[in-house]
Amino acid sequence: MKNVSVSKDDRIPPRERIIGVARELFYRHGIRAVGVEAVAEAAGTNKMTLYRHFASKDQLVAEYLRCLAADADGLWAKLESQFPGDARAQLSAWVKEMAKHVANSEERGCALANAAVEIPEKHHPARQVIEEFKCAQRGRLMQLCRASKLSDPELLADELFLLLEGARVTAQSMGAESPGARFVRMAGVMIASHGT
Amino acid sequence: MKNVSVSKDDRIPPRERIIGVARELFYRHGIRAVGVEAVAEAAGTNKMTLYRHFASKDQLVAEYLRCLAADADGLWAKLESQFPGDARAQLSAWVKEMAKHVANSEERGCALANAAVEIPEKHHPARQVIEEFKCAQRGRLMQLCRASKLSDPELLADELFLLLEGARVTAQSMGAESPGARFVRMAGVMIASHGT
Repeated sequence: MKNVSVSKDDRIPPRERIIGVARELFYRHGIRAVGVEAVAEAAGTNKMTLYRHFASKDQLVAEYLRCLAADADGLWAKLESQFPGDARAQLSAWVKEMAKHVANSEERGCALANAAVEIPEKHHPARQVIEEFKCAQRGRLMQLCRASKLSDPELLADELFLLLEGARVTAQSMGAESPGARFVRMAGVMIASHGT
Repeated sequence: MKNVSVSKDDRIPPRERIIGVARELFYRHGIRAVGVEAVAEAAGTNKMTLYRHFASKDQLVAEYLRCLAADADGLWAKLESQFPGDARAQLSAWVKEMAKHVANSEERGCALANAAVEIPEKHHPARQVIEEFKCAQRGRLMQLCRASKLSDPELLADELFLLLEGARVTAQSMGAESPGARFVRMAGVMIASHGT
């Protein structure tokens, strides 16, 4: 729990400081490994203030994941603005963007997938955030594969989706030796095999 | 933590009862969600006895994963005895066996991959167990793909490996809506695309 670099700058409202710290600590150490006390302290505030903004730790976790989901959603707009109307180029760029995440040894996979592993409780408020996010990502990828005029686009989208999920979790279980290191090549072969 | 069904049968030595309980509770609720006290109690023993057998919770976690890894290793021998000398049939049977895990809604993915998500600490004794297990599984799959005389067998093995890892983690983040439901079909398409 050392080396917390999140700002305690008190010009930033407590709620934002808490979210900022939660993003860093929950992602780095895991959701269950970090208590609300540690979050409050690292954010330069206290548990009472934290509970004024978030009814429970579970609600804080859900909000942490909502923030990450919103950030990740931004990627689709970025791809569209980089390659307007060119779905095939957007798909290639998506593969390259995802490969950067897989290869980044500072990262610990997808925070939302990790949260699903840590939170088996079906009624935890985070579960809805996770499921909606993953379904939306899959939907966007499917849309892109369809627009790319590749054959059997739904199958391709699911292949790429699982390849990525596998690469991101395997990076955690196998480190640099993970087959995820070949993500770009594998995705390329998959896309080519759906060529028309 | 309710409904623990693990036996407290005192004809079973405490060490085995502890491991049995750890397998159930760690897998079901997550490693960090379950304390040694809960494990000892569910095993009908106490913390002092637990610590006589396991120097620390970390060592108990490592042993829990070693047991699961040993069980999973048994699959390869089973495939060989079912289809002696027929690597292609073994590969198909492997896909079907894995699909059963993916489809089983009682399961929460691969316990060793889940542990990697929960344990970011590089020097935790569980990490070596996880890495060795995943590398060995990948190696066995590669061996099978090579023996199946398929083209580019190393690539195929890694594609199947990531597809499975993705399917097992996505079953947790998306439930029944996961693209992992199409695991058998996707694996079949992958294997066919490496046909010679």
